[in-house]
Amino acid sequence: MIAPHGGTLVSRTVDSPESERALRDESKGLRSLTLTGRELNDLALIANGALSPLEGFMSRKDYESVVETMRLANGLPWSIPVVLGVTREEAPTPGTRAALYDGEGVLRGVIEVEEIYDYDKAREARNVYLTEDEKHPGVAALYERKDVLVGGPVRVFAREHDPENLSPSECRAEFERRGWKTIVGFQTRNPVHRAHEYIQKCALETVDGLLLHPLVGETKSDDIPAEVRMRCYRALLENYYPSNRVLLSTLQAAMRYAGPREAIFHAIMRKNHGCTHFIVGRDHAGVGSYYGTYDAQKMFDNFTPEELGIIPLKFENSFYCLRCEGMGSQKTCSHDPTHHVTLSGTQVREMLRAGQLPPQEFSRPEVAQILIEASRETATSA
Amino acid sequence: MIAPHGGTLVSRTVDSPESERALRDESKGLRSLTLTGRELNDLALIANGALSPLEGFMSRKDYESVVETMRLANGLPWSIPVVLGVTREEAPTPGTRAALYDGEGVLRGVIEVEEIYDYDKAREARNVYLTEDEKHPGVAALYERKDVLVGGPVRVFAREHDPENLSPSECRAEFERRGWKTIVGFQTRNPVHRAHEYIQKCALETVDGLLLHPLVGETKSDDIPAEVRMRCYRALLENYYPSNRVLLSTLQAAMRYAGPREAIFHAIMRKNHGCTHFIVGRDHAGVGSYYGTYDAQKMFDNFTPEELGIIPLKFENSFYCLRCEGMGSQKTCSHDPTHHVTLSGTQVREMLRAGQLPPQEFSRPEVAQILIEASRETATSA
Repeated sequence: MIAPHGGTLVSRTVDSPESERALRDESKGLRSLTLTGRELNDLALIANGALSPLEGFMSRKDYESVVETMRLANGLPWSIPVVLGVTREEAPTPGTRAALYDGEGVLRGVIEVEEIYDYDKAREARNVYLTEDEKHPGVAALYERKDVLVGGPVRVFAREHDPENLSPSECRAEFERRGWKTIVGFQTRNPVHRAHEYIQKCALETVDGLLLHPLVGETKSDDIPAEVRMRCYRALLENYYPSNRVLLSTLQAAMRYAGPREAIFHAIMRKNHGCTHFIVGRDHAGVGSYYGTYDAQKMFDNFTPEELGIIPLKFENSFYCLRCEGMGSQKTCSHDPTHHVTLSGTQVREMLRAGQLPPQEFSRPEVAQILIEASRETATSA
Repeated sequence: MIAPHGGTLVSRTVDSPESERALRDESKGLRSLTLTGRELNDLALIANGALSPLEGFMSRKDYESVVETMRLANGLPWSIPVVLGVTREEAPTPGTRAALYDGEGVLRGVIEVEEIYDYDKAREARNVYLTEDEKHPGVAALYERKDVLVGGPVRVFAREHDPENLSPSECRAEFERRGWKTIVGFQTRNPVHRAHEYIQKCALETVDGLLLHPLVGETKSDDIPAEVRMRCYRALLENYYPSNRVLLSTLQAAMRYAGPREAIFHAIMRKNHGCTHFIVGRDHAGVGSYYGTYDAQKMFDNFTPEELGIIPLKFENSFYCLRCEGMGSQKTCSHDPTHHVTLSGTQVREMLRAGQLPPQEFSRPEVAQILIEASRETATSA
């Protein structure tokens, strides 16, 4: 089994009823902080070890180092800040603890406040997102973040077990149980069309198993809702994948849309879940036209294979070719694009809204049907 | 560029007209040895560095070590003996040189005789071929080999340049020219049907280029002749592969049909040609039912990734699935075998002999047409 990032799988989940009771009692006397959806996503990932070796929200030293060098202060590759924002007024005193609440007032955990520090949003935007444009959804979220950051380790209350949202240790145990030694992880925030299926299956041919690992934390409002996507994934797996070679489980991470930097972050989280390989497609974690099509793939060249540990599998845009009578990409198909079955995102959305199935060379009908139904539900509720 | 096996690309080719003249003159006074087709294949591969780090036919120490431990005496992985057999009567004296002729009396090179030694054919058969059965074509060839072995470095006259039979250094230069950093090698002694095309393209999706590297040395008499296969490869590449992603070049090696041990040997030769990855399919280099379907793949687990250097990509049997409407394998397709388009070798041969094209889900018509014509030519000439 591949070692977690940094060597040890972190757990910051409170693991006994006694500790939980004690922490709940203590928290009553603590300053309260209310986390945003994104911060709650990060909190859950720190708790279950998906962000190993992080044990809490980043200290200034790690934050600065990540923003400037794409490494933690100890030199380990790390590409995305994981931070907790507060206003100056609500900032707790270093050396104390603070209670962490979600937006509905539910106590989720406690942070040991090591540090309160200022940061430069514009610099973070430039370095992490490569743009200061507020139309970029990641930059917009960054600009909405509160003005000072709280660094320190957290302890988090356990969540209910969800067989479709496995923690890194649960994923690893499942891989062990299935006897998989090499596992390729697939990040997605969209329904899987035949192009993605092709890429996944290409990768799967040379490893033992596929972790289909959709991201279900905060995404842009126009992304397809996680619940609809899950229905699509289940329909696809049921009809086109051998169940003994695929594991479907969600990742409660927020999308940053940070392209190249986020691709590294996505790979590290999958490494912590036990994946040995990770699929990096075209414009991975991109949005609009902020990043070059293959910039995310090139980003992996900034690190040695040893320090990343997980192996990126880089794929180009793929399509069904009528001359090949099969799926392929520019790398494997020599035919003119007129033979290729391709549709833009806009075209697909229009067809689905009109209740039309896209060509079966583009989408599996079982998946398209679910998307048609979902677009009707949206239309009705709108 | 990947380092050659053992670190340095060997060349034992005589590289100047002066040296060639001197060696030809010298050879007139030397004892003459006539090499078999297989030994000539090996001689050519030693000369051009395909068998780096070997500089000649194996000494007893290397031979014993390879047969017993799958390593050269210096510990480097090596799975197949590369030896020159002579009768006791014709054995030259150690310390002398001997002239190496082909079956038509053409001088091909000279060996510095370091050693003459006895060997145990039955043991070599058991260890290398895992059987002493003389019906095994590799074992049969071993039993026909002469009774003592000559070890020592060789010098070999240059052959005419052939753009479809590139030496390791020519292959490497071509990869460099094309800007390929990762290259997958595909060994074949058969025409390429869609199952092989699928495997090649799956592998190609995640690397820069494909070396289609058919073996054209001595094979079983019922294997399809190299010349016919080359026509098939050219037709396939012309119609279904992007020319900037594939290099077709032959390898003048004899087939041993040694299954698992030969898979390692095949991989090492491709590493010397500059490949970073090597496709190992089902029953690689096997014959009859002497080896388990995936034994050749498992053989790679006997070596560390570092000491082999080249990365094996292990593929299962693949097929067109009518439900998937695409190629797949048991690992990627969940449908009942009744949906799969599969044909036995015998079925294919019968169809081709009868002038019938196999289903296009099985063979590309351009390839099948060539095989039909070839089977007619054979029928006419027989």
